[in-house]
Amino acid sequence: MRDLTGRLDLCCINTATLGHREPIERIAERVARAGFGFVTPWRHEIDEKRPQAAAAAIRAAGLKLGGYCRTTYLSADDAAGRREAIADNQRAIEVAAELGAPFLVAVVGGLAPHSSDAVAGRGHILDGIAALRPTLRACGVRLALEPLHPFYAADRSLLSTLAQAVDWCEQLDDGGPPCIGIALDAYHVWWDPALSASIARAGPHLLALHVCDWLRTTRDPLLDRGMMGDGVIDLRALRAAAEATGFAGPVEVEIFSQADWWTRDPDDVLATCSERLQRFC
Amino acid sequence: MRDLTGRLDLCCINTATLGHREPIERIAERVARAGFGFVTPWRHEIDEKRPQAAAAAIRAAGLKLGGYCRTTYLSADDAAGRREAIADNQRAIEVAAELGAPFLVAVVGGLAPHSSDAVAGRGHILDGIAALRPTLRACGVRLALEPLHPFYAADRSLLSTLAQAVDWCEQLDDGGPPCIGIALDAYHVWWDPALSASIARAGPHLLALHVCDWLRTTRDPLLDRGMMGDGVIDLRALRAAAEATGFAGPVEVEIFSQADWWTRDPDDVLATCSERLQRFC
Repeated sequence: MRDLTGRLDLCCINTATLGHREPIERIAERVARAGFGFVTPWRHEIDEKRPQAAAAAIRAAGLKLGGYCRTTYLSADDAAGRREAIADNQRAIEVAAELGAPFLVAVVGGLAPHSSDAVAGRGHILDGIAALRPTLRACGVRLALEPLHPFYAADRSLLSTLAQAVDWCEQLDDGGPPCIGIALDAYHVWWDPALSASIARAGPHLLALHVCDWLRTTRDPLLDRGMMGDGVIDLRALRAAAEATGFAGPVEVEIFSQADWWTRDPDDVLATCSERLQRFC
Repeated sequence: MRDLTGRLDLCCINTATLGHREPIERIAERVARAGFGFVTPWRHEIDEKRPQAAAAAIRAAGLKLGGYCRTTYLSADDAAGRREAIADNQRAIEVAAELGAPFLVAVVGGLAPHSSDAVAGRGHILDGIAALRPTLRACGVRLALEPLHPFYAADRSLLSTLAQAVDWCEQLDDGGPPCIGIALDAYHVWWDPALSASIARAGPHLLALHVCDWLRTTRDPLLDRGMMGDGVIDLRALRAAAEATGFAGPVEVEIFSQADWWTRDPDDVLATCSERLQRFC
Protein backbone atom coordinates (compact mmCIF):
# COMPACT_ATOMS: atom_id res chain seq x y z
CA MET A 1 0.00 0.00 0.00
CA ARG A 2 1.26 3.46 -0.87
CA ASP A 3 2.32 5.70 2.02
CA LEU A 4 0.06 8.76 1.90
CA THR A 5 2.00 10.63 4.57
CA GLY A 6 2.56 14.09 3.19
CA ARG A 7 1.29 12.93 -0.18
CA LEU A 8 -1.85 15.01 -0.64
CA ASP A 9 -0.75 15.23 -4.26
CA LEU A 10 -2.06 11.65 -4.49
CA CYS A 11 -5.42 12.71 -3.05
CA CYS A 12 -8.51 14.21 -4.65
CA ILE A 13 -11.36 16.36 -3.45
CA ASN A 14 -14.76 15.68 -4.93
CA THR A 15 -16.45 19.07 -4.95
CA ALA A 16 -19.56 17.60 -3.31
CA THR A 17 -17.47 17.57 -0.12
CA LEU A 18 -17.64 21.35 0.01
CA GLY A 19 -21.40 21.48 -0.57
CA HIS A 20 -21.39 23.05 -4.05
CA ARG A 21 -21.48 26.53 -2.54
CA GLU A 22 -18.94 28.28 -4.75
CA PRO A 23 -17.97 28.47 -8.42
CA ILE A 24 -15.50 25.85 -9.61
CA GLU A 25 -12.72 28.44 -10.07
CA ARG A 26 -12.88 29.38 -6.40
CA ILE A 27 -13.14 25.74 -5.29
CA ALA A 28 -10.13 24.72 -7.38
CA GLU A 29 -8.10 27.52 -5.83
CA ARG A 30 -8.98 26.38 -2.30
CA VAL A 31 -8.34 22.70 -3.07
CA ALA A 32 -4.94 23.49 -4.59
CA ARG A 33 -3.99 25.79 -1.72
CA ALA A 34 -4.81 22.97 0.74
CA GLY A 35 -2.24 20.84 -1.08
CA PHE A 36 -4.42 18.35 -2.93
CA GLY A 37 -3.36 17.17 -6.36
CA PHE A 38 -6.75 16.41 -7.89
CA VAL A 39 -10.30 17.71 -8.01
CA THR A 40 -13.47 16.01 -9.28
CA PRO A 41 -16.17 18.49 -10.27
CA TRP A 42 -19.88 17.93 -10.85
CA ARG A 43 -21.72 18.77 -14.04
CA HIS A 44 -23.80 21.56 -12.55
CA GLU A 45 -20.60 23.40 -11.66
CA ILE A 46 -19.40 23.37 -15.25
CA ASP A 47 -20.82 25.40 -18.12
CA GLU A 48 -21.09 22.44 -20.46
CA LYS A 49 -21.48 24.73 -23.46
CA ARG A 50 -18.06 26.24 -22.71
CA PRO A 51 -16.10 23.86 -20.45
CA GLN A 52 -12.76 25.36 -21.56
CA ALA A 53 -12.94 28.14 -18.96
CA ALA A 54 -13.36 25.70 -16.08
CA ALA A 55 -10.68 23.44 -17.51
CA ALA A 56 -8.27 26.36 -17.71
CA ALA A 57 -9.04 27.48 -14.15
CA ILE A 58 -8.45 23.98 -12.78
CA ARG A 59 -5.16 23.71 -14.70
CA ALA A 60 -4.13 27.19 -13.60
CA ALA A 61 -4.65 26.15 -9.99
CA GLY A 62 -2.19 23.32 -10.59
CA LEU A 63 -4.77 20.55 -10.22
CA LYS A 64 -5.46 17.48 -12.29
CA LEU A 65 -8.93 16.14 -12.87
CA GLY A 66 -9.78 13.10 -10.73
CA GLY A 67 -12.93 12.38 -12.69
CA TYR A 68 -16.20 14.01 -13.65
CA CYS A 69 -19.56 13.51 -11.84
CA ARG A 70 -21.90 12.14 -13.17
CA THR A 71 -24.23 10.44 -15.65
CA THR A 72 -27.93 11.06 -16.02
CA TYR A 73 -29.90 7.97 -14.94
CA LEU A 74 -30.08 5.46 -17.78
CA SER A 75 -33.41 4.01 -16.64
CA ALA A 76 -36.62 5.48 -18.01
CA ASP A 77 -40.15 4.32 -18.66
CA ASP A 78 -39.88 4.32 -22.43
CA ALA A 79 -37.36 4.08 -25.23
CA ALA A 80 -37.53 7.82 -25.91
CA GLY A 81 -36.57 8.56 -22.31
CA ARG A 82 -33.71 6.11 -22.49
CA ARG A 83 -32.45 7.63 -25.77
CA GLU A 84 -32.57 11.06 -24.20
CA ALA A 85 -30.48 9.81 -21.26
CA ILE A 86 -27.93 8.33 -23.65
CA ALA A 87 -27.66 11.59 -25.59
CA ASP A 88 -27.21 13.58 -22.40
CA ASN A 89 -24.51 11.21 -21.20
CA GLN A 90 -22.74 11.39 -24.57
CA ARG A 91 -22.47 15.14 -24.02
CA ALA A 92 -21.14 14.56 -20.49
CA ILE A 93 -18.46 12.26 -21.91
CA GLU A 94 -17.40 14.92 -24.40
CA VAL A 95 -17.19 17.48 -21.62
CA ALA A 96 -15.17 15.08 -19.46
CA ALA A 97 -12.71 14.86 -22.36
CA GLU A 98 -12.59 18.64 -22.78
CA LEU A 99 -11.91 19.00 -19.05
CA GLY A 100 -9.19 16.38 -19.19
CA ALA A 101 -11.01 13.98 -16.84
CA PRO A 102 -9.99 10.35 -17.27
CA PHE A 103 -13.50 9.09 -16.53
CA LEU A 104 -17.12 10.01 -16.09
CA VAL A 105 -18.69 8.54 -12.95
CA ALA A 106 -21.87 6.59 -13.69
CA VAL A 107 -24.78 6.56 -11.27
CA VAL A 108 -26.89 4.32 -13.41
CA GLY A 109 -30.42 4.96 -12.18
CA GLY A 110 -32.96 3.04 -10.14
CA LEU A 111 -36.29 1.62 -11.16
CA ALA A 112 -37.92 3.60 -13.93
CA PRO A 113 -40.57 5.93 -12.45
CA HIS A 114 -43.50 3.68 -13.30
CA SER A 115 -41.82 0.30 -13.11
CA SER A 116 -41.12 -2.16 -10.34
CA ASP A 117 -39.29 -4.61 -12.60
CA ALA A 118 -35.69 -4.53 -11.41
CA VAL A 119 -34.58 -7.20 -13.85
CA ALA A 120 -35.93 -5.31 -16.87
CA GLY A 121 -34.52 -2.08 -15.43
CA ARG A 122 -31.04 -3.55 -15.17
CA GLY A 123 -31.32 -4.76 -18.76
CA HIS A 124 -32.22 -1.28 -20.02
CA ILE A 125 -29.35 0.23 -18.07
CA LEU A 126 -26.87 -2.26 -19.50
CA ASP A 127 -28.12 -1.44 -23.00
CA GLY A 128 -27.65 2.25 -22.26
CA ILE A 129 -24.10 1.75 -21.06
CA ALA A 130 -23.29 -0.36 -24.12
CA ALA A 131 -24.58 2.45 -26.33
CA LEU A 132 -22.07 4.84 -24.76
CA ARG A 133 -19.01 2.81 -25.74
CA PRO A 134 -18.38 4.45 -29.13
CA THR A 135 -18.45 7.95 -27.58
CA LEU A 136 -16.24 6.83 -24.71
CA ARG A 137 -13.67 5.44 -27.13
CA ALA A 138 -13.83 8.40 -29.48
CA CYS A 139 -13.26 10.74 -26.54
CA GLY A 140 -10.65 8.65 -24.73
CA VAL A 141 -12.76 8.76 -21.57
CA ARG A 142 -13.82 5.80 -19.44
CA LEU A 143 -17.11 5.26 -17.69
CA ALA A 144 -16.69 4.48 -13.98
CA LEU A 145 -19.68 2.42 -12.88
CA GLU A 146 -20.41 3.23 -9.26
CA PRO A 147 -22.34 0.62 -7.29
CA LEU A 148 -24.56 2.54 -4.90
CA HIS A 149 -25.69 1.39 -1.47
CA PRO A 150 -28.70 -0.95 -1.72
CA PHE A 151 -30.71 1.72 0.05
CA TYR A 152 -30.86 3.55 -3.31
CA ALA A 153 -32.00 0.66 -5.49
CA ALA A 154 -35.49 2.04 -6.02
CA ASP A 155 -34.68 5.63 -6.84
CA ARG A 156 -31.00 5.98 -7.80
CA SER A 157 -29.15 2.82 -8.75
CA LEU A 158 -30.01 -0.74 -9.68
CA LEU A 159 -26.28 -1.34 -9.57
CA SER A 160 -25.94 -2.23 -5.88
CA THR A 161 -22.84 -4.31 -5.23
CA LEU A 162 -19.24 -4.44 -6.34
CA ALA A 163 -19.71 -8.05 -7.50
CA GLN A 164 -22.48 -6.87 -9.80
CA ALA A 165 -20.29 -4.05 -11.13
CA VAL A 166 -17.54 -6.53 -11.98
CA ASP A 167 -20.11 -8.77 -13.68
CA TRP A 168 -21.28 -5.79 -15.71
CA CYS A 169 -17.72 -4.85 -16.73
CA GLU A 170 -17.23 -8.39 -17.96
CA GLN A 171 -20.57 -8.44 -19.80
CA LEU A 172 -19.84 -5.07 -21.41
CA ASP A 173 -16.43 -6.16 -22.67
CA ASP A 174 -16.87 -6.37 -26.43
CA GLY A 175 -13.23 -7.04 -27.16
CA GLY A 176 -12.57 -3.41 -28.11
CA PRO A 177 -10.31 -1.02 -26.18
CA PRO A 178 -11.32 -0.95 -22.48
CA CYS A 179 -13.72 1.92 -21.83
CA ILE A 180 -15.70 0.82 -18.78
CA GLY A 181 -14.50 0.43 -15.22
CA ILE A 182 -15.62 0.91 -11.64
CA ALA A 183 -15.75 3.71 -9.08
CA LEU A 184 -15.56 2.13 -5.64
CA ASP A 185 -17.03 4.25 -2.85
CA ALA A 186 -16.43 3.03 0.70
CA TYR A 187 -19.79 4.37 1.86
CA HIS A 188 -21.71 2.21 -0.59
CA VAL A 189 -19.88 -1.08 -0.16
CA TRP A 190 -18.37 -1.28 3.34
CA TRP A 191 -21.22 -3.47 4.66
CA ASP A 192 -20.77 -6.18 2.03
CA PRO A 193 -19.72 -9.57 3.43
CA ALA A 194 -18.36 -10.40 -0.04
CA LEU A 195 -16.31 -7.19 -0.27
CA SER A 196 -12.82 -8.70 -0.10
CA ALA A 197 -13.60 -11.30 -2.72
CA SER A 198 -15.21 -8.69 -4.94
CA ILE A 199 -12.29 -6.27 -4.68
CA ALA A 200 -9.94 -9.06 -5.70
CA ARG A 201 -12.10 -9.62 -8.80
CA ALA A 202 -12.48 -5.89 -9.45
CA GLY A 203 -8.75 -5.20 -9.65
CA PRO A 204 -8.19 -4.39 -13.30
CA HIS A 205 -11.49 -2.48 -13.50
CA LEU A 206 -10.97 -0.07 -10.59
CA LEU A 207 -10.81 3.54 -11.75
CA ALA A 208 -11.66 5.44 -8.57
CA LEU A 209 -11.63 5.01 -4.82
CA HIS A 210 -13.97 7.31 -2.89
CA VAL A 211 -13.72 7.68 0.86
CA CYS A 212 -15.84 9.16 3.64
CA ASP A 213 -17.34 7.34 6.65
CA TRP A 214 -20.57 5.64 7.68
CA LEU A 215 -21.80 7.12 10.93
CA ARG A 216 -22.98 4.43 13.31
CA THR A 217 -26.32 6.13 13.84
CA THR A 218 -26.95 7.16 10.24
CA ARG A 219 -30.58 8.10 9.79
CA ASP A 220 -30.46 10.04 6.52
CA PRO A 221 -28.60 7.81 4.08
CA LEU A 222 -28.24 10.53 1.46
CA LEU A 223 -26.89 13.66 3.09
CA ASP A 224 -25.46 12.52 6.41
CA ARG A 225 -22.14 10.99 5.46
CA GLY A 226 -19.34 11.16 7.97
CA MET A 227 -15.79 12.47 7.77
CA MET A 228 -13.14 9.75 7.63
CA GLY A 229 -12.49 8.53 11.18
CA ASP A 230 -15.89 9.56 12.54
CA GLY A 231 -17.66 6.34 11.59
CA VAL A 232 -17.23 2.60 11.31
CA ILE A 233 -15.53 1.95 7.98
CA ASP A 234 -12.07 0.41 7.99
CA LEU A 235 -10.81 2.71 5.24
CA ARG A 236 -7.19 1.66 5.50
CA ALA A 237 -8.10 -1.98 4.91
CA LEU A 238 -10.26 -0.97 1.96
CA ARG A 239 -7.48 1.05 0.36
CA ALA A 240 -4.95 -1.70 1.03
CA ALA A 241 -7.23 -4.22 -0.69
CA ALA A 242 -7.76 -1.92 -3.69
CA GLU A 243 -4.06 -1.14 -4.03
CA ALA A 244 -3.15 -4.81 -3.67
CA THR A 245 -5.06 -5.40 -6.90
CA GLY A 246 -3.05 -2.69 -8.66
CA PHE A 247 -5.18 0.39 -8.12
CA ALA A 248 -2.91 3.44 -8.19
CA GLY A 249 -5.31 6.33 -8.70
CA PRO A 250 -5.92 9.19 -6.30
CA VAL A 251 -7.84 8.62 -3.07
CA GLU A 252 -10.91 10.82 -3.44
CA VAL A 253 -12.89 12.38 -0.61
CA GLU A 254 -16.63 12.63 -1.27
CA ILE A 255 -18.78 13.67 1.67
CA PHE A 256 -22.45 14.64 1.43
CA SER A 257 -23.20 16.24 4.78
CA GLN A 258 -25.92 18.81 4.71
CA ALA A 259 -26.19 19.45 8.43
CA ASP A 260 -22.52 19.28 9.32
CA TRP A 261 -19.59 19.57 6.91
CA TRP A 262 -21.50 21.61 4.33
CA THR A 263 -22.15 24.26 6.96
CA ARG A 264 -18.45 24.69 7.82
CA ASP A 265 -15.77 26.92 6.38
CA PRO A 266 -14.47 25.21 3.20
CA ASP A 267 -10.81 25.71 4.14
CA ASP A 268 -11.43 24.09 7.53
CA VAL A 269 -13.16 21.17 5.83
CA LEU A 270 -10.19 20.74 3.49
CA ALA A 271 -7.74 20.87 6.40
CA THR A 272 -9.75 18.19 8.19
CA CYS A 273 -9.85 16.04 5.05
CA SER A 274 -6.10 16.35 4.76
CA GLU A 275 -5.47 15.30 8.35
CA ARG A 276 -8.03 12.47 8.33
CA LEU A 277 -6.80 11.06 5.01
CA GLN A 278 -3.39 10.61 6.55
CA ARG A 279 -4.66 9.24 9.87
CA PHE A 280 -7.46 6.96 8.74
CA CYS A 281 -7.02 6.10 5.08
CA MET B 1 -47.08 -21.58 -6.25
CA ARG B 2 -49.94 -22.01 -3.80
CA ASP B 3 -53.16 -20.16 -4.53
CA LEU B 4 -53.73 -17.81 -1.58
CA THR B 5 -57.23 -16.80 -2.71
CA GLY B 6 -59.44 -17.12 0.33
CA ARG B 7 -56.61 -18.85 2.17
CA LEU B 8 -55.85 -16.44 5.00
CA ASP B 9 -55.42 -19.56 7.08
CA LEU B 10 -52.05 -19.85 5.28
CA CYS B 11 -51.12 -16.29 6.27
CA CYS B 12 -49.59 -14.86 9.39
CA ILE B 13 -49.65 -11.48 11.09
CA ASN B 14 -46.48 -10.37 12.80
CA THR B 15 -47.68 -8.27 15.70
CA ALA B 16 -45.27 -5.46 14.75
CA THR B 17 -47.73 -4.74 11.93
CA LEU B 18 -50.24 -3.46 14.48
CA GLY B 19 -47.69 -1.27 16.27
CA HIS B 20 -47.53 -3.17 19.57
CA ARG B 21 -50.36 -1.10 20.99
CA GLU B 22 -52.40 -3.81 22.70
CA PRO B 23 -51.82 -6.90 24.83
CA ILE B 24 -51.22 -10.12 22.95
CA GLU B 25 -54.59 -11.57 24.01
CA ARG B 26 -56.45 -8.71 22.34
CA ILE B 27 -54.20 -8.83 19.25
CA ALA B 28 -54.71 -12.58 18.86
CA GLU B 29 -58.46 -12.11 19.02
CA ARG B 30 -58.37 -9.46 16.28
CA VAL B 31 -56.03 -11.47 14.06
CA ALA B 32 -58.20 -14.58 14.37
CA ARG B 33 -61.41 -12.62 13.75
CA ALA B 34 -59.85 -11.22 10.55
CA GLY B 35 -59.40 -14.79 9.35
CA PHE B 36 -55.64 -15.29 9.65
CA GLY B 37 -54.29 -18.66 10.68
CA PHE B 38 -51.06 -17.59 12.34
CA VAL B 39 -49.62 -14.90 14.57
CA THR B 40 -45.98 -14.09 15.36
CA PRO B 41 -45.56 -12.21 18.64
CA TRP B 42 -42.60 -10.26 19.96
CA ARG B 43 -40.84 -10.91 23.22
CA HIS B 44 -41.92 -7.71 24.91
CA GLU B 45 -45.54 -8.74 24.44
CA ILE B 46 -45.01 -11.99 26.31
CA ASP B 47 -44.45 -12.39 30.05
CA GLU B 48 -41.44 -14.65 29.64
CA LYS B 49 -41.65 -15.76 33.26
CA ARG B 50 -45.14 -17.16 32.58
CA PRO B 51 -45.61 -17.61 28.83
CA GLN B 52 -48.37 -20.19 29.34
CA ALA B 53 -51.09 -17.54 29.62
CA ALA B 54 -50.19 -15.98 26.28
CA ALA B 55 -49.85 -19.43 24.71
CA ALA B 56 -53.32 -20.37 25.96
CA ALA B 57 -54.86 -17.12 24.68
CA ILE B 58 -53.35 -17.60 21.23
CA ARG B 59 -54.59 -21.19 21.10
CA ALA B 60 -58.02 -20.17 22.38
CA ALA B 61 -58.26 -17.65 19.54
CA GLY B 62 -57.70 -20.54 17.14
CA LEU B 63 -54.31 -19.33 15.95
CA LYS B 64 -51.04 -21.15 15.45
CA LEU B 65 -47.69 -19.55 16.14
CA GLY B 66 -45.88 -18.41 13.02
CA GLY B 67 -42.64 -17.80 14.90
CA TYR B 68 -41.30 -15.76 17.80
CA CYS B 69 -39.46 -12.41 17.48
CA ARG B 70 -36.56 -12.09 18.23
CA THR B 71 -33.02 -12.68 19.52
CA THR B 72 -30.93 -10.25 21.51
CA TYR B 73 -27.94 -9.07 19.42
CA LEU B 74 -25.12 -11.58 19.60
CA SER B 75 -22.40 -8.97 19.08
CA ALA B 76 -20.85 -7.31 22.11
CA ASP B 77 -17.57 -5.66 22.98
CA ASP B 78 -16.38 -8.41 25.33
CA ALA B 79 -16.84 -12.09 26.08
CA ALA B 80 -19.02 -11.35 29.11
CA GLY B 81 -21.42 -9.37 26.96
CA ARG B 82 -21.54 -12.13 24.39
CA ARG B 83 -22.19 -14.77 27.08
CA GLU B 84 -25.02 -12.64 28.43
CA ALA B 85 -26.56 -12.43 24.95
CA ILE B 86 -26.34 -16.20 24.58
CA ALA B 87 -28.03 -16.77 27.94
CA ASP B 88 -30.80 -14.34 27.07
CA ASN B 89 -31.36 -16.04 23.73
CA GLN B 90 -31.42 -19.46 25.38
CA ARG B 91 -34.33 -18.22 27.48
CA ALA B 92 -36.05 -16.89 24.34
CA ILE B 93 -35.71 -20.32 22.73
CA GLU B 94 -37.30 -21.98 25.77
CA VAL B 95 -40.16 -19.50 25.63
CA ALA B 96 -40.61 -20.10 21.91
CA ALA B 97 -40.99 -23.79 22.74
CA GLU B 98 -43.49 -23.06 25.51
CA LEU B 99 -45.51 -20.90 23.12
CA GLY B 100 -45.42 -23.60 20.47
CA ALA B 101 -43.48 -21.45 17.98
CA PRO B 102 -41.51 -23.48 15.43
CA PHE B 103 -38.68 -20.96 15.35
CA LEU B 104 -37.12 -17.94 16.97
CA VAL B 105 -36.25 -15.17 14.53
CA ALA B 106 -32.62 -14.06 14.82
CA VAL B 107 -31.59 -10.47 14.28
CA VAL B 108 -27.96 -11.12 14.89
CA GLY B 109 -26.56 -7.71 15.79
CA GLY B 110 -24.37 -5.15 14.07
CA LEU B 111 -20.90 -3.99 14.97
CA ALA B 112 -20.20 -4.20 18.68
CA PRO B 113 -20.63 -0.73 20.23
CA HIS B 114 -16.90 0.04 20.31
CA SER B 115 -15.76 -1.94 17.29
CA SER B 116 -15.53 -1.25 13.61
CA ASP B 117 -14.23 -4.71 12.74
CA ALA B 118 -17.03 -6.31 10.75
CA VAL B 119 -15.05 -9.49 10.12
CA ALA B 120 -14.40 -10.09 13.82
CA GLY B 121 -17.99 -9.15 14.58
CA ARG B 122 -19.33 -11.76 12.17
CA GLY B 123 -17.05 -14.35 13.76
CA HIS B 124 -18.37 -13.59 17.24
CA ILE B 125 -21.94 -13.78 15.99
CA LEU B 126 -21.32 -17.14 14.35
CA ASP B 127 -19.82 -18.43 17.60
CA GLY B 128 -22.88 -17.19 19.46
CA ILE B 129 -25.27 -18.94 17.08
CA ALA B 130 -23.25 -22.14 17.34
CA ALA B 131 -23.53 -21.97 21.13
CA LEU B 132 -27.34 -21.92 20.84
CA ARG B 133 -27.57 -25.25 19.00
CA PRO B 134 -27.88 -27.51 22.07
CA THR B 135 -30.75 -25.40 23.46
CA LEU B 136 -32.46 -25.27 20.07
CA ARG B 137 -32.30 -29.05 19.77
CA ALA B 138 -33.35 -29.67 23.34
CA CYS B 139 -36.37 -27.42 22.83
CA GLY B 140 -37.28 -28.56 19.33
CA VAL B 141 -37.12 -24.96 18.11
CA ARG B 142 -35.19 -23.64 15.12
CA LEU B 143 -33.33 -20.38 14.78
CA ALA B 144 -34.42 -18.39 11.73
CA LEU B 145 -31.48 -16.20 10.69
CA GLU B 146 -32.86 -13.03 9.16
CA PRO B 147 -30.56 -11.14 6.80
CA LEU B 148 -31.30 -7.45 7.36
CA HIS B 149 -31.00 -4.71 4.77
CA PRO B 150 -27.40 -3.51 4.44
CA PHE B 151 -28.55 -0.19 5.83
CA TYR B 152 -28.50 -1.83 9.28
CA ALA B 153 -25.03 -3.34 9.14
CA ALA B 154 -23.54 -0.94 11.67
CA ASP B 155 -26.21 -1.02 14.32
CA ARG B 156 -28.46 -4.07 13.87
CA SER B 157 -27.15 -6.87 11.68
CA LEU B 158 -23.86 -7.93 10.17
CA LEU B 159 -25.89 -10.56 8.36
CA SER B 160 -26.82 -8.56 5.27
CA THR B 161 -27.62 -10.81 2.33
CA LEU B 162 -29.44 -14.04 1.67
CA ALA B 163 -26.29 -15.54 0.15
CA GLN B 164 -24.49 -14.88 3.42
CA ALA B 165 -27.35 -16.47 5.39
CA VAL B 166 -27.11 -19.62 3.27
CA ASP B 167 -23.33 -19.66 3.78
CA TRP B 168 -23.87 -19.40 7.53
CA CYS B 169 -26.43 -22.22 7.54
CA GLU B 170 -23.90 -24.40 5.77
CA GLN B 171 -21.07 -23.38 8.10
CA LEU B 172 -23.24 -24.02 11.17
CA ASP B 173 -24.24 -27.48 10.03
CA ASP B 174 -22.48 -29.79 12.48
CA GLY B 175 -24.09 -32.96 11.18
CA GLY B 176 -26.64 -33.00 14.01
CA PRO B 177 -30.40 -32.53 13.58
CA PRO B 178 -31.12 -29.33 11.62
CA CYS B 179 -31.78 -26.45 13.99
CA ILE B 180 -30.85 -23.35 11.98
CA GLY B 181 -32.63 -21.88 9.00
CA ILE B 182 -33.51 -18.55 7.42
CA ALA B 183 -36.24 -15.93 7.71
CA LEU B 184 -36.51 -14.19 4.36
CA ASP B 185 -38.01 -10.70 4.52
CA ALA B 186 -38.85 -9.06 1.20
CA TYR B 187 -38.01 -5.62 2.55
CA HIS B 188 -34.45 -6.58 3.35
CA VAL B 189 -33.54 -8.47 0.20
CA TRP B 190 -35.62 -7.18 -2.73
CA TRP B 191 -32.78 -4.98 -4.05
CA ASP B 192 -30.29 -7.84 -4.35
CA PRO B 193 -29.17 -8.58 -7.92
CA ALA B 194 -28.23 -12.09 -6.74
CA LEU B 195 -31.64 -12.73 -5.15
CA SER B 196 -32.92 -15.40 -7.52
CA ALA B 197 -29.72 -17.39 -7.33
CA SER B 198 -29.65 -17.07 -3.55
CA ILE B 199 -33.28 -18.17 -3.12
CA ALA B 200 -32.53 -21.25 -5.19
CA ARG B 201 -29.65 -22.05 -2.81
CA ALA B 202 -31.70 -21.16 0.28
CA GLY B 203 -34.50 -23.64 -0.44
CA PRO B 204 -34.08 -26.25 2.27
CA HIS B 205 -33.20 -23.59 4.85
CA LEU B 206 -36.21 -21.28 4.42
CA LEU B 207 -38.33 -21.13 7.55
CA ALA B 208 -40.21 -17.87 7.10
CA LEU B 209 -41.29 -15.48 4.38
CA HIS B 210 -42.04 -11.94 5.52
CA VAL B 211 -43.79 -9.45 3.27
CA CYS B 212 -44.42 -5.70 3.23
CA ASP B 213 -43.31 -3.19 0.61
CA TRP B 214 -40.46 -0.78 -0.07
CA LEU B 215 -41.83 2.68 -0.71
CA ARG B 216 -40.12 4.32 -3.65
CA THR B 217 -39.31 7.44 -1.64
CA THR B 218 -38.28 5.72 1.59
CA ARG B 219 -36.43 8.15 3.80
CA ASP B 220 -36.67 6.41 7.18
CA PRO B 221 -35.46 2.86 6.58
CA LEU B 222 -36.60 1.62 9.98
CA LEU B 223 -40.18 2.69 10.56
CA ASP B 224 -41.52 3.64 7.15
CA ARG B 225 -42.27 0.30 5.54
CA GLY B 226 -45.08 0.14 3.04
CA MET B 227 -48.19 -2.03 2.79
CA MET B 228 -47.98 -4.69 0.09
CA GLY B 229 -48.84 -3.08 -3.24
CA ASP B 230 -47.85 0.44 -2.21
CA GLY B 231 -44.18 0.08 -3.15
CA VAL B 232 -41.84 -1.46 -5.66
CA ILE B 233 -41.29 -5.07 -4.56
CA ASP B 234 -42.48 -7.84 -6.85
CA LEU B 235 -43.85 -9.89 -3.96
CA ARG B 236 -45.56 -12.46 -6.13
CA ALA B 237 -42.29 -13.30 -7.87
CA LEU B 238 -40.54 -13.55 -4.52
CA ARG B 239 -43.14 -15.95 -3.11
CA ALA B 240 -43.12 -17.98 -6.31
CA ALA B 241 -39.34 -18.33 -6.10
CA ALA B 242 -39.47 -19.33 -2.43
CA GLU B 243 -42.26 -21.85 -2.98
CA ALA B 244 -40.49 -23.28 -6.02
CA THR B 245 -37.72 -24.35 -3.66
CA GLY B 246 -40.22 -26.11 -1.41
CA PHE B 247 -41.12 -23.40 1.08
CA ALA B 248 -44.63 -24.13 2.38
CA GLY B 249 -44.87 -22.03 5.53
CA PRO B 250 -47.26 -19.16 6.13
CA VAL B 251 -46.79 -15.83 4.36
CA GLU B 252 -46.19 -13.38 7.17
CA VAL B 253 -46.99 -9.66 7.11
CA GLU B 254 -44.52 -7.52 9.04
CA ILE B 255 -44.89 -3.76 8.61
CA PHE B 256 -43.11 -1.16 10.72
CA SER B 257 -44.91 2.06 9.92
CA GLN B 258 -44.88 4.61 12.67
CA ALA B 259 -46.47 7.49 10.80
CA ASP B 260 -49.04 5.56 8.81
CA TRP B 261 -50.25 2.01 9.52
CA TRP B 262 -49.49 2.15 13.23
CA THR B 263 -51.82 5.13 13.57
CA ARG B 264 -54.78 3.32 12.00
CA ASP B 265 -57.51 1.17 13.48
CA PRO B 266 -56.04 -2.35 13.90
CA ASP B 267 -59.06 -4.05 12.33
CA ASP B 268 -58.77 -1.81 9.26
CA VAL B 269 -55.07 -2.63 8.99
CA LEU B 270 -55.84 -6.35 9.15
CA ALA B 271 -58.55 -6.02 6.51
CA THR B 272 -56.09 -4.20 4.25
CA CYS B 273 -53.43 -6.86 4.85
CA SER B 274 -55.95 -9.52 3.91
CA GLU B 275 -56.93 -7.81 0.68
CA ARG B 276 -53.37 -6.90 -0.32
CA LEU B 277 -52.00 -10.38 0.42
CA GLN B 278 -54.44 -11.79 -2.08
CA ARG B 279 -53.89 -9.07 -4.70
CA PHE B 280 -50.15 -8.58 -4.53
CA CYS B 281 -48.54 -11.61 -2.92
